[in-house]
Amino acid sequence: MTALNTRAATLRAKLDVSRPAVAMAAHNPLAAKLAAEAGFDAIWGSGFELSASHAVPDASILPMDTHLEMMRAMGEVQEAPVIADIDTGFGNAVNVAYAVPKYAAAGVAAVVIEDKTFPKDSSLRPGGRQELVPVGEFQGKVEAAKAAGDMLVIARTEALIAGLGQAEALSRGAAYAEAGADAVLIHSRQKTPDEILAFCRAWPGQVPLVLVPTSYPQLSFADVGSLGKVGLIICGNHAIRAAVRAMQETFRRILAEGGIAGVESSIASVSDVFALQGDALMREIEKAYLR
Amino acid sequence: MTALNTRAATLRAKLDVSRPAVAMAAHNPLAAKLAAEAGFDAIWGSGFELSASHAVPDASILPMDTHLEMMRAMGEVQEAPVIADIDTGFGNAVNVAYAVPKYAAAGVAAVVIEDKTFPKDSSLRPGGRQELVPVGEFQGKVEAAKAAGDMLVIARTEALIAGLGQAEALSRGAAYAEAGADAVLIHSRQKTPDEILAFCRAWPGQVPLVLVPTSYPQLSFADVGSLGKVGLIICGNHAIRAAVRAMQETFRRILAEGGIAGVESSIASVSDVFALQGDALMREIEKAYLR
Amino acid sequence: MTALNTRAATLRAKLDVSRPAVAMAAHNPLAAKLAAEAGFDAIWGSGFELSASHAVPDASILPMDTHLEMMRAMGEVQEAPVIADIDTGFGNAVNVAYAVPKYAAAGVAAVVIEDKTFPKDSSLRPGGRQELVPVGEFQGKVEAAKAAGDMLVIARTEALIAGLGQAEALSRGAAYAEAGADAVLIHSRQKTPDEILAFCRAWPGQVPLVLVPTSYPQLSFADVGSLGKVGLIICGNHAIRAAVRAMQETFRRILAEGGIAGVESSIASVSDVFALQGDALMREIEKAYLR
Amino acid sequence: MTALNTRAATLRAKLDVSRPAVAMAAHNPLAAKLAAEAGFDAIWGSGFELSASHAVPDASILPMDTHLEMMRAMGEVQEAPVIADIDTGFGNAVNVAYAVPKYAAAGVAAVVIEDKTFPKDSSLRPGGRQELVPVGEFQGKVEAAKAAGDMLVIARTEALIAGLGQAEALSRGAAYAEAGADAVLIHSRQKTPDEILAFCRAWPGQVPLVLVPTSYPQLSFADVGSLGKVGLIICGNHAIRAAVRAMQETFRRILAEGGIAGVESSIASVSDVFALQGDALMREIEKAYLR
Repeated sequence: MTALNTRAATLRAKLDVSRPAVAMAAHNPLAAKLAAEAGFDAIWGSGFELSASHAVPDASILPMDTHLEMMRAMGEVQEAPVIADIDTGFGNAVNVAYAVPKYAAAGVAAVVIEDKTFPKDSSLRPGGRQELVPVGEFQGKVEAAKAAGDMLVIARTEALIAGLGQAEALSRGAAYAEAGADAVLIHSRQKTPDEILAFCRAWPGQVPLVLVPTSYPQLSFADVGSLGKVGLIICGNHAIRAAVRAMQETFRRILAEGGIAGVESSIASVSDVFALQGDALMREIEKAYLR
Repeated sequence: MTALNTRAATLRAKLDVSRPAVAMAAHNPLAAKLAAEAGFDAIWGSGFELSASHAVPDASILPMDTHLEMMRAMGEVQEAPVIADIDTGFGNAVNVAYAVPKYAAAGVAAVVIEDKTFPKDSSLRPGGRQELVPVGEFQGKVEAAKAAGDMLVIARTEALIAGLGQAEALSRGAAYAEAGADAVLIHSRQKTPDEILAFCRAWPGQVPLVLVPTSYPQLSFADVGSLGKVGLIICGNHAIRAAVRAMQETFRRILAEGGIAGVESSIASVSDVFALQGDALMREIEKAYLR
Repeated sequence: MTALNTRAATLRAKLDVSRPAVAMAAHNPLAAKLAAEAGFDAIWGSGFELSASHAVPDASILPMDTHLEMMRAMGEVQEAPVIADIDTGFGNAVNVAYAVPKYAAAGVAAVVIEDKTFPKDSSLRPGGRQELVPVGEFQGKVEAAKAAGDMLVIARTEALIAGLGQAEALSRGAAYAEAGADAVLIHSRQKTPDEILAFCRAWPGQVPLVLVPTSYPQLSFADVGSLGKVGLIICGNHAIRAAVRAMQETFRRILAEGGIAGVESSIASVSDVFALQGDALMREIEKAYLR
Repeated sequence: MTALNTRAATLRAKLDVSRPAVAMAAHNPLAAKLAAEAGFDAIWGSGFELSASHAVPDASILPMDTHLEMMRAMGEVQEAPVIADIDTGFGNAVNVAYAVPKYAAAGVAAVVIEDKTFPKDSSLRPGGRQELVPVGEFQGKVEAAKAAGDMLVIARTEALIAGLGQAEALSRGAAYAEAGADAVLIHSRQKTPDEILAFCRAWPGQVPLVLVPTSYPQLSFADVGSLGKVGLIICGNHAIRAAVRAMQETFRRILAEGGIAGVESSIASVSDVFALQGDALMREIEKAYLR
């Protein structure tokens, strides 16, 4: 078995079911850096956030390269492990086999691959298309991803999202763990955590679970930890949602007030942004090499 | 003379010195869409914001393609004219001649090109490198950009930023207008608007001026309008600054509160984000073509 | 109905069933320019050639952007209409609806979309996966592509490749023409032209046909023209095949001869390459704008 | 000192002044694979060839990303070390410091950086712009590149191209070796090897030299080896020149003959191309993972 890359090893060590790691979604390297600075354990390289930042649906519309290059760029400017959301793997198992090594070379710590058919639709979209591929077909995708070797592969089952029930979800989770998945992401869009809690309690624990509690925010990180089954909690879309609200409010005020003076104290300063751009590093570079 | 493209014509019509247009910076198509929805007249395709969103300095570090593709994507999802910040034009006048047609083909309404040497440094950066190219050399760049034909070319002089004084700034502005610039952007980083006000009053008015009042926010849009010289005010970095502050605060609260419930009312809803992604359009497409 | 763009109009005018246009495949802008200079009527923006130039299979492995940007670049350096080979349309009809406007904006004259399932496999590959989508589903894709409006849409049926026989091929061709396709590409991999000739004779002629005679090279352009049914002949892969053989031979000789002197007369001169790079244009730019 | 990456170590071991390595230029991954299969020691990731393949001048016109991604793709499909031609380093030493780690992460074995001013012009272009940066400034660039650490840095002096004479060339070469360059590329465009031979004999041998004998092809690899000073010979443009001539001839014949039958025996077969695309690997993947 291939040794994990450094960030993958860091991530694996944090998948502690008694004290789950917490990842924050990011849609650009700046958001990733802010999440790392805030103290999140990992960065969720979210397809939903990236699609939203391009103002297009999260439905296999952005080409793979756009996502791949964003993952690479996120890893270049901060140290937290990046977990790449590769949706359905861009097609069948052959596509997975060609795509995943590129993600490994981009320095990601893990990929998450889901068992919906390509092209995917957003899991939380009302009336969305949520058809799953057969279990055996998806096991082939997991195995193809694992063969890339030096990072983690997280298998995401949409069985609950697709309305197939807990038994199917458990059966798929078990099959994916058997195929080599390092963790199983179980997604639910119910407004209460009941469905997820029942699943977690019934999960035998072959591998750690991963939760994305967008729809049931009332479930605290401590509550999740007390289940003893979950290694990772993903805050799936809070970076873009924070940014949207803030831009809406700032834009509205500037036009309403007829000037930019009023918002100054509500937004980051220009020098804060310089710092986030790595101005200190550039000054070192200038001093060392610029003549 | 080539006819302007539709968005360039829209923008030109708005360069009204008695009632200046107002543009908002954007670093991704979502921010552009939010700015258009808020009512801004144009989108500032800011190199500073784009660099910041990648957490790298605004110093000719991001490759041209990254910026160009972002401009194209901004124009695909909203209707307001996009003003592309092409810094120094990526090298000399030959680079300008090869680059600007690509921006025209990407549907931008205008390019802004500045008279600093390549590689540029951020105008507001303390101690930054602010050397200017000779006037004649920059006129060649403006002419090369104009030859692309069907959009506006805004010449930006950094003479005040470089500490060369008002006379040099006026002289450069005049030379650039003579070379064909459709407007002249005059930049200042003084903390009060005095320097800019003096320049505007002294400007003979060959073409409209463009201001970026980041450093002197106390100057209101109405104040600018009363000068009768300025056709466009650019809010240069307020989208990214709003996003940074909101992400910092949201990230901090989630970790401090040990859960995502608390921030729900402070951030945009998931359905708001779906709407911004054009969910309605995708539903039309699904209905019309998906069988 | 939207007016065609200029190059699409040029291409449509050449789809003359009494004297078919001939397109040459290209895998980069240089090959496109050479094909245009040689006198071909159009450039075939071949997925097979582009995949081959990246040394990966033609099986939906290269991301859409790589192909899209190549089409754009081909159109920037020469005037012949570019026919973009978009395979299956990158997914379902929704993907088509999002992708095709990007191709239109990239200046292509036509897209060719095929009725295989995504991810595709190469039509000529022994033992390849050649499953087709239902007719109605593909009609939706054609309609989605047509809605982009200002270019031609060529529907490609793989019914013969998939072994479904002439009746199915004719039925699909008719259904696609009915859905709005401007031409129907009928592909065969039989070593003789019999299958294709039979199809062409049986084709009622609603729209012009398009042939790719790779497998049955003995069929001359004049023979095709005498059928009175075919508007376009595509030379599908001869650019890359010529380049491969020449590089193999040149590389072998240089190593065998222990130097580069021997191959000089068998390869293009450096000044030939300068000319193809548009050196004359750059000299004009330098003279006009560089000071 | 950071350990070299595997391919850099392979390349360093081949820089044997008694038996110089030979690199072949490539403009796409296919050409790189053909060069490796032919037996060349390394791949020259040529800016000239890549620019030519896009039919644009080799004058800092293609953006960095186009070149960077091509280097990455070349390394993905074959095992020979890739030597990346990064021209002047995309600006000043700060640009070098930001760019070179990206090349290292893309898996290249070495970068070649030249002492011309940005934007560069092609060295062999008649009347081209060949101004050099000051020695100290270029040393800073070499040091910035070296700090990326795990690959080789080859410093290219254009002193002879710029007409500055042997003394200046020797002095620059020595200064660059002192700054940490692993080898010095000395370029000449004289039609005979006299200038280069004189330089090589006068070179003290601090580090190996690199030659690009395009202009003086009569100098054999054995002749170069007998100098005892040169570690690497680069065949700078023979891949694209071979491809150009072959495409021109094939295109001409097809149109002249009115069909594709005649060229069949002069070009690679479709099955040869399948093999180069890695069809065997894809079959293994299909067998292992596709269900």
